[in-house]
Amino acid sequence: MPKQIEDKKKITLRVKKIQGQVQAIERALNDDTSCAAILQQICAVRGAINGLMNQVLEVHLKDTLVDGDSTELQRSEELIEISKILKSYLK
Amino acid sequence: MPKQIEDKKKITLRVKKIQGQVQAIERALNDDTSCAAILQQICAVRGAINGLMNQVLEVHLKDTLVDGDSTELQRSEELIEISKILKSYLK
Amino acid sequence: MPKQIEDKKKITLRVKKIQGQVQAIERALNDDTSCAAILQQICAVRGAINGLMNQVLEVHLKDTLVDGDSTELQRSEELIEISKILKSYLK
Amino acid sequence: MPKQIEDKKKITLRVKKIQGQVQAIERALNDDTSCAAILQQICAVRGAINGLMNQVLEVHLKDTLVDGDSTELQRSEELIEISKILKSYLK
Repeated sequence: MPKQIEDKKKITLRVKKIQGQVQAIERALNDDTSCAAILQQICAVRGAINGLMNQVLEVHLKDTLVDGDSTELQRSEELIEISKILKSYLK
Repeated sequence: MPKQIEDKKKITLRVKKIQGQVQAIERALNDDTSCAAILQQICAVRGAINGLMNQVLEVHLKDTLVDGDSTELQRSEELIEISKILKSYLK
Repeated sequence: MPKQIEDKKKITLRVKKIQGQVQAIERALNDDTSCAAILQQICAVRGAINGLMNQVLEVHLKDTLVDGDSTELQRSEELIEISKILKSYLK
Repeated sequence: MPKQIEDKKKITLRVKKIQGQVQAIERALNDDTSCAAILQQICAVRGAINGLMNQVLEVHLKDTLVDGDSTELQRSEELIEISKILKSYLK
């Protein structure tokens, strides 16, 4: 999880917002909303998920590669883990 | 919304599952799970959202272009709406 | 391939444009362009590929589900094939 | 562009491979290949573009955040640029 409390708060807020968006899709299904409108809601959630992913990735880069004192070797080992994440991130 | 009750049930089930996955991300944040693990959870939600989108789109194609009697003109008008959806769907 | 010559021309034009964009990435690599600028070029190609995909999919829906006289059963069989495409389309 | 010649070679090879894949789509259009098969080829190009993007991003992280001696402040400034790239990367 993010090392900075501030980062964690921001990310949790985004996650809560996405929860609200997903609940709205369920309501829309019950309210007989048009499929076109529901697809737009789903697109919006996907956009929010991508935004969340970017933010968590950025915080992770900050925590592992940027902040504090570190040697080239330490950062190099962190990058191996980050590469694995990137591979499943975009495929 | 989907015309067939069966389709609606399946889609609602997927939405509920995604709700559970998003709640699990919130719990993971509180449990100090590693960023790498949280990113994998977010990737999984994105996959589930894409799956939901495909299913709603497929049902929409069935309801508007396939099922029942329709003229070429009617289907042609439906396709204009579907094209708009596809454009925001993949960009 | 698209049934209408007009559709085929439009799609071929898009493909040629993408070829130009990919060649530009190769030149940028040779010209020592910054990684940030190259990543933006790659993003642009991805956007163009998504646009191409949407257009081919739309033409395919027109050719198989909209144009001409067809029975519900014929369209229903076409949808099975389209569903397979959609699944590999977004995953 | 990548600082290591080895990285540049690998990336150039990927770009050349994508060029071949895009040319194959043009040939498929001329050969009256089915739309379904063409859509699969387009999906494959998109996958290759995403793979290229990941590799360039990884090399960029290595060049800016990992390799050599750097201060926290320097890496922090690099991260601002990387964040901008990530935002246009996934949206």
